[in-house]
Formats: sequence, structure tokens, C-alpha cells
Amino acid sequence: MTDELRRVDVALGERSYPILIGRGLLDDPRCLRDSIDAREVMVVSNETVAPLYLDRLRAAFADRRLASACLPDGEQEKQLESMLPVFDTLLVNGFSRDCQVVALGGGVIGDLAGFVAATYQRGVGFVQVPTTLLAMVDSSVGGKTGVNHPRGKNMIGAFHQPRAVIADLAVLDSLPQRELRAGMAEVIKYALLGDADFLAWLEAHLDAAMARDPATLAHIVERCCRNKAAIVAADEREAGQRALLNLGHTFGHAIEAARGYGDWLHGEAIAAGMCMAARLSARLGWINARDRDRAIALIERAGLPVHAPADMGAGRFREFMARDKKNRDGALRLVLLRALGDATVTADYDPDALTATLEAEGHD
Amino acid sequence: MTDELRRVDVALGERSYPILIGRGLLDDPRCLRDSIDAREVMVVSNETVAPLYLDRLRAAFADRRLASACLPDGEQEKQLESMLPVFDTLLVNGFSRDCQVVALGGGVIGDLAGFVAATYQRGVGFVQVPTTLLAMVDSSVGGKTGVNHPRGKNMIGAFHQPRAVIADLAVLDSLPQRELRAGMAEVIKYALLGDADFLAWLEAHLDAAMARDPATLAHIVERCCRNKAAIVAADEREAGQRALLNLGHTFGHAIEAARGYGDWLHGEAIAAGMCMAARLSARLGWINARDRDRAIALIERAGLPVHAPADMGAGRFREFMARDKKNRDGALRLVLLRALGDATVTADYDPDALTATLEAEGHD
Repeated sequence: MTDELRRVDVALGERSYPILIGRGLLDDPRCLRDSIDAREVMVVSNETVAPLYLDRLRAAFADRRLASACLPDGEQEKQLESMLPVFDTLLVNGFSRDCQVVALGGGVIGDLAGFVAATYQRGVGFVQVPTTLLAMVDSSVGGKTGVNHPRGKNMIGAFHQPRAVIADLAVLDSLPQRELRAGMAEVIKYALLGDADFLAWLEAHLDAAMARDPATLAHIVERCCRNKAAIVAADEREAGQRALLNLGHTFGHAIEAARGYGDWLHGEAIAAGMCMAARLSARLGWINARDRDRAIALIERAGLPVHAPADMGAGRFREFMARDKKNRDGALRLVLLRALGDATVTADYDPDALTATLEAEGHD
Repeated sequence: MTDELRRVDVALGERSYPILIGRGLLDDPRCLRDSIDAREVMVVSNETVAPLYLDRLRAAFADRRLASACLPDGEQEKQLESMLPVFDTLLVNGFSRDCQVVALGGGVIGDLAGFVAATYQRGVGFVQVPTTLLAMVDSSVGGKTGVNHPRGKNMIGAFHQPRAVIADLAVLDSLPQRELRAGMAEVIKYALLGDADFLAWLEAHLDAAMARDPATLAHIVERCCRNKAAIVAADEREAGQRALLNLGHTFGHAIEAARGYGDWLHGEAIAAGMCMAARLSARLGWINARDRDRAIALIERAGLPVHAPADMGAGRFREFMARDKKNRDGALRLVLLRALGDATVTADYDPDALTATLEAEGHD
């Protein structure tokens, strides 16, 4: 039973859907059955999450056909090959185009299960049940699905919106602290890119959040989802402002790919990436040193890395950044800060400042 | 240089595109450059077709960046794993979201390259250059892309419309006769499912078509494309009438999957499948024996199989048909004939007639 149910709507015309946020939603069969209404339910999860929560879905759908596929945990599983056993389970069970795929897990499971839903029989229904802070505030919302390629992050995928996102805040109670910190990186991202009021609020409430105060986490998840829903509704396919959500990600994806997926968590890599974006913005004179340090200080308080790995030189960064999906006609586009709470996507910056920023990493 | 350029438009709002039909289009750089306008051009082809035509694309795009991936020939290559070298080539070359993928080949290459285009960086531009009759009249038009799964045909894929289809009729001159026959199966399909006038025309002109009379083939490709364009424009995502294009395919896909992909050509399998659909329709009393025999006779005249493989029993058919994408809530939906030139999609038929039809195959 839920204490208080918060609802955020993602307005996308006939593809609109609700984000339901509350404690205990996984113990509320009615909530699950209202959101997942197919007769054939395919749950995709991982070996860490399934033992904790899969039985609740089984109980809620005892009168329907439920199949499940359980992958190993970790970013290294987010690859094309890992989709094969899921397709196999769908086909062995004879699931039709009317089935729904449910992602029960964090960002990796959500992205992969969503891509399965986008491509099984050319597209079936999809519901997100995020079990990490990162997935709740970011990856479960907005319809970006896909897998990594050894040469670049999220290079293979599709836009496929879920029919609903069910965020049970109670699952955050058992989330490892490192995962909580990684999720906080995306939370801070929303504040830095477009929500200065939230930035000030976060500075005041970060300790409560890291201590998992329920009301604080509820506010954070709702606020981030409202920010993301507004951006996605305005630019579903990332023709423009949606790219702002990539603050810290150009540098971060390069770190993830260069280290081999799974060494640094995604949130850790983009934390370092956001610090690099802040430093470059300051070097360009777009923000002052005080604001730069304010952004970095919050990230550091959340227990996140503020520098790239020391052994990652400028050459490795450029190699992976050259493949970034935002690039157009050979120009390297970055998300940079014009102020705290005001990011911009641009290829119009002094390239020497980028070089200096890359070369300074690990040597500050 | 083209003799006569025919153009059929597929009307899909902002996703509308032209089908250009004519002899010598691959020797017309202006036609190619108008249709493929990206700076980065990724050609996907196979080992049979690439030696014949890839150089013409290279010549037309000498001032742009062109990369190519060349797969082995055959339906057995239409699988998820075969996409990996194509993604690899795209990434090694650093191709961006602004690139365009060009399918130079038959239905296998078109479906696979289209699925690559649908999923590389969550979707890039796509142009079809079909080199078989089957691809020209059917698979290159309409945006169905995807790959097979060992347990079912076209089970993994996406809807992704091309920006243009360029059908150079001159390439049919060198098409193996078996491939020409296989393409004729889809041609006959359009006549049977919805174009009675075309059926009569085909009966009068089949010999000229099989002898590759240029004017006859040009008329056939245009007529089929007009039929397909109208159906796709009315029902892009196959919510209804588009399923009529699956005449013969429920039985045919079962034959292909049961035999192992590549043993029977797709066109051969659906030829046998259409004969089975005609026999079932007659058994149900929906068409008379004369019309049934008229349909089968045309297929036989085209040199195509009119029965399933003799060793494929009813059990194997049911096993694979149970996974057909058209099925809803456990009901097996079939495309059947209410008259020659008037097909219908239905699960409302006497199941005993289906059983009798399956059991009679190979023993007639």
C-alpha cells in the first residue's frame, strides 16, 4: 500500500504515459495490473534484482501468462548478444504482438528490455519498473532504448516510449550506496542544466538524500521526472533541447567506453564528465570560477569522482568523443554551461580550451 | 541513362518517398545523388551483387565519404549477428546520425540494412536499391525491416521507411532465373489479393515476363509498387488491411523456418503457401474449384512450387504457424480468398478445414 502516490505525465500525444511514484507500489497489485494490462507479460530483470522483486510481479499476474528472462548484472551485459535469450524466451512461450515487456531493474535492464520491446515483432508494449535511483530519475523516462557497441555507448537502439513508469521508492532502501551516489549524479545534472532553484534545494538537502530520507527522495524523484518529462515532451527525438540532458555525457561516455563498460558506473563517469564540462565552461569564460567550484563541490559531496581516471589522456578522450551521437558534419558538439542552471548545446567554442581541459585531467 | 522514368509515390505524410523505376538508373549519377544526399554513405550489399554494381555507387559518390559492408549471400545471413560487422564499419568510419544507409541487393540485404538504419544511433536515413524482382515489387517498399530468429521469420525488426527506392530494371537482365521466378510469386500475390484486372493481364503476359521482355517487366514493377504503395499508405503499421500482403506467407514462413532459412527461397515458399491458401479457401467454399485451379495454374506456369515439401507434416506447420505475428489472443489468423482478387484476414474459419488442408499437403 502506498503512503502517497505522486504522478507525473509525459505529454506525447497518443504516446503519452504516466510516471507513478510512491512507496510500496510493487506491493499494490491494482497499480501493477492497471499499468500492465496484457495477457502475456515478459519480465526482463537481472540476477541481483529478480530474487528481490520478481515474486511480487508473479503474484500480481498469477492469472496471466508471465515469462521472465534474467541477465547477469552490469553494464557489460548491455549488448546486442544479451538480447538473444530474451527473444528466445518470448518465442518459446509463443508471445504475440499483444504482449508487454516489463523492465524490472536499473538503467541497463531498462535500456535493453526497451530495445527488445521496440524490435520484437517490430514493436510491442513496454512498461518500466526502475529499481535504481538513476533509472527512476532519468533512464526509465523518455523512450531512449538500446545497447552499447564496443566502440561506443548506446550506439544501437531505438526510440520506444513505455506505456507507464512505476517507481516504487521502497526499493531504494536496499540500493547499494555506490548505486545511490551514481543516481545522484543524474539528479545533480537536472539542477545544473536547467533548474537553479533545485540546485539550491539540493545543496540544502543532499545529506538527507544520501541518508535516504523518504520524503527527500520522493521530492527528488518527482522533481527530476517533471524536468525530464517537460524536456522530452518538447523534443521527443532530440532534434534540439533534449540534448541538454547529455550534460557531462560526452566526456562520461568516453570514460565508460575507454575503461571498458562496467568498471566505472555510468553515474560516476558522468559525474566526472560534468566537472569537466564545468571546467571547460569556466575556461571559456562562460561561468566564473566560483560557480565552477560550486558545481564541483556538490558532486564531490555526493561522493562522486570529480576527475577522469588519471591514466586517460586527451588522445583517448578524442578517440571516443569523435563518435558521439551529437556530432554533426565532423563538428564536436558539447553541452556546456552558460550559468548554473543554464546549459547549451554547441560546437561554437574555442577548441584550444577543450584541448587544455582534456590535457589537464588527472593532473590537477 | 534511362529510357523512361516511372515514379510511384508512397504517401506517408512527412515520411513520404518516391519509388523510381527505370532502366539504367545505376548509370545515372544525378538520380543517385538526388536520392542519396548525405555526406556519409554506408552501402550494405552481398558478395554476389557488390562485384556487379558497387563500383557505380563509388563512382557516383567519389566526392563523398562512402563505406561498404559486404555479407555472404542468402537468407541464412538475415540474422542479428550479421548486423555486427555493419555496425562496426559505421563506427570505424565514425559515421554520424546524418549518414545514410544504402541497401544494394535483394530482400535479405534490404531488410537487414533497413534494420541497421533503424537502429544505428537510434535511426539514420535509408535508401533502397533493390537488385531482385522480389525486392523491387515488394520488400523494398513499405518500411518493414528486420531479421529472422531461428524460431521464426522476421521476428526481430522495426518499421523504418526509406527516403527513396531506386529500381534499375537493367539489373534484372543478369538475375538468375530461379530468382526471377521467386519474384514472380510476389507479383502474382498482388493480383490474387486485390487486383483481378492485373491477374487477367498476368495470365496473358506471363511468358513475356519470364522471357524478361523489358516493357512487360517495367509494367509489372510499376503496377505492383502502385498496389503496395496504396496499401502501405492506408495502413503503415499493419493495423488492418496491410496484413493482406501476407497472402501465402503464414504457410510460407512456416516452410522457410522448418526447412532452415535458405533452402527454399522466400518466393518459392510463399508460392506454395498461396496454393495452400487457395485450397483452404476452396475447401471452405469461399472460392470455387475453378478459381482455385486458375490461381494454382498461374503459379505453376511461373515455374514455382505448388505444394509444401512432402516431408513437412501438419505438426510442423502448426508449430511454426503458432508464432505468426498476425495471431491475436491465441487465434491463428490467416489471409484467405473470398474471390480471385479479393483476400481477407480472418480467424473466423472452420478449423477442421485448415487441418484437412495441412494434412493433404504432399499427398495430393
